[in-house]
Amino acid sequence: MQSQPINNQQIILVSRPTGWVTPDNFKLIEADIPNPGPDQVLIRNQWLSLDPYMRGRISEAKSYAQSVNIGEVMVGATVGVVIESRSEKFRVGDVVLGATGWQLYGVANANQLLSIDTTLVPASAYLGVLGMPGITAWTGLINICAPSPGETVVVDAASGAVGSVVGQLAKNLGCHVVGIAGGEEKCRYVVDVLGFDACVDHRSSTFAADLKAHIPEGIDCLFENVGGEIFENLLTLMKPFSRIALCGLVSEFNREPHAYRTIRSILVNRIKLQGFIVSDKLETWPGIRKNLHDLIESGKLTFRESIAQGLEKAPEAFVGMLKGKNFGKQLVKLS
Amino acid sequence: MQSQPINNQQIILVSRPTGWVTPDNFKLIEADIPNPGPDQVLIRNQWLSLDPYMRGRISEAKSYAQSVNIGEVMVGATVGVVIESRSEKFRVGDVVLGATGWQLYGVANANQLLSIDTTLVPASAYLGVLGMPGITAWTGLINICAPSPGETVVVDAASGAVGSVVGQLAKNLGCHVVGIAGGEEKCRYVVDVLGFDACVDHRSSTFAADLKAHIPEGIDCLFENVGGEIFENLLTLMKPFSRIALCGLVSEFNREPHAYRTIRSILVNRIKLQGFIVSDKLETWPGIRKNLHDLIESGKLTFRESIAQGLEKAPEAFVGMLKGKNFGKQLVKLS
Repeated sequence: MQSQPINNQQIILVSRPTGWVTPDNFKLIEADIPNPGPDQVLIRNQWLSLDPYMRGRISEAKSYAQSVNIGEVMVGATVGVVIESRSEKFRVGDVVLGATGWQLYGVANANQLLSIDTTLVPASAYLGVLGMPGITAWTGLINICAPSPGETVVVDAASGAVGSVVGQLAKNLGCHVVGIAGGEEKCRYVVDVLGFDACVDHRSSTFAADLKAHIPEGIDCLFENVGGEIFENLLTLMKPFSRIALCGLVSEFNREPHAYRTIRSILVNRIKLQGFIVSDKLETWPGIRKNLHDLIESGKLTFRESIAQGLEKAPEAFVGMLKGKNFGKQLVKLS
Repeated sequence: MQSQPINNQQIILVSRPTGWVTPDNFKLIEADIPNPGPDQVLIRNQWLSLDPYMRGRISEAKSYAQSVNIGEVMVGATVGVVIESRSEKFRVGDVVLGATGWQLYGVANANQLLSIDTTLVPASAYLGVLGMPGITAWTGLINICAPSPGETVVVDAASGAVGSVVGQLAKNLGCHVVGIAGGEEKCRYVVDVLGFDACVDHRSSTFAADLKAHIPEGIDCLFENVGGEIFENLLTLMKPFSRIALCGLVSEFNREPHAYRTIRSILVNRIKLQGFIVSDKLETWPGIRKNLHDLIESGKLTFRESIAQGLEKAPEAFVGMLKGKNFGKQLVKLS
């Protein structure tokens, strides 16, 4: 147990990136520890989640959520311990999931917090496999792709927080699952630990040929996280009446939009391509989280975390994640 | 009534186009009038339908249907009169809808023909508003876009065989309907005769601004026939949770595939984009045709035809249609 700092520490946005994000876009500042109002609690954060969607929040471009303003604390999901409560729902010592952002202490409304059970899984899992990324994987795969046993499911960023869950869920459903990941080490993990049938390294010079070799009959379900050349290529491998859950275009965040020349495949192959944002259906989260928890308990769902130590490391870890340097769910350990 | 020619005349494919189709890709030849076998009938064709999908059939590129081989008679839907029958289902004099191709006489299996009722509508309508184009319009609008009253529906190639039906159906459903067409005359027809709320001329130098002005709140349902710059532009005007029925990419037939830089809108706006081919669900055609027939009868659905006179004019009319020179459903009158 570390001693409690007297002040809060926060990371604020100081400039918007043009192209790649750099740690210079952020600044660590000292601030007072806030006081909870009625029906609020004060939380000492233990874990901060870093996720690709945060890149959208620091951009000027229109997206599905409001931008973080210059000078504001960066948004983000957090897990922490209640240290002061003005709500009947929470007691000091409760471990809670919330969205208090990139800071050591946060105040939150009681109705925006979830008390979490860490008997069987570590608290950090509620930011990954049991949190937004895991629920994203479930929603896109089950509700949009809806694969049948025996169908071929492809997911890129396969070793990441979302992709790793997509592939394992698809294997549990009896699908043939091919992952795409960057580098041999990640590909080995995807096959040997996560149990995918195959994994194709997108950094290989023979990527396009490798992809065709591993997907000889084409793709029934594509869970798309990456966009760019990879997605453009995958579009040409879709089967008639196939489905694409468009979850992210992380490769497009730091450059001009990619120009897709393979859109005709959507017509020729009668593809259903659907974009989705997991926060549109918050009412489904508790049920999905329960299902994912059960799968972990029965050994059918495993996960891996990349952990940066200390709030000051968050910007660097965030940039690294956007470049694919993380391996599994990217977290920052705060205390 | 013309006198009957002694020989059949056919138009065959003699070369595949590179870029734009030209009349030189086809050749008119004389041939024997074929003899019907058991359960077949001989038809003297009255009308030949010209449709954009035919461009795909003369290309080497993979599409949803097999290519026409060099030397083969061009495929196409036809309406004609039975002049010899070896089937119990048809008698001499029956008017039938079939797909005997670009020729004056054709033999067809009885089970691939539909006897048509021309009491209320002309026979040619079974190639347009009551045929594949009309059923395409219904399928994409009702089954894929599924608009609610008050929603904004946009369709391009709005004065064409498909687009004109899409817009009228959407108006009947109580939608706000904006068409896109090439030229002022077509736009006037779309608004004044077809009853769309507005029409934007894509040939205008102020096209992008005009589009925004007529669709201030964005698009709920897009019925996409054209592709290219128009579709790329429309993607940026889609509303959250909007739907796109991808019916055709006619602007891409005669050039390199367009490179779409606005795919991110599908993610940000959670768009459902679905390609479809109307012949995938032949079992739905009779019911849809009945609905369309009822709408014509009650004055809620009107149509217009461009008619080329004589089989020898088919290649020129086909090229003209791909360039948007037709006005309404393009037909060839054969006898």
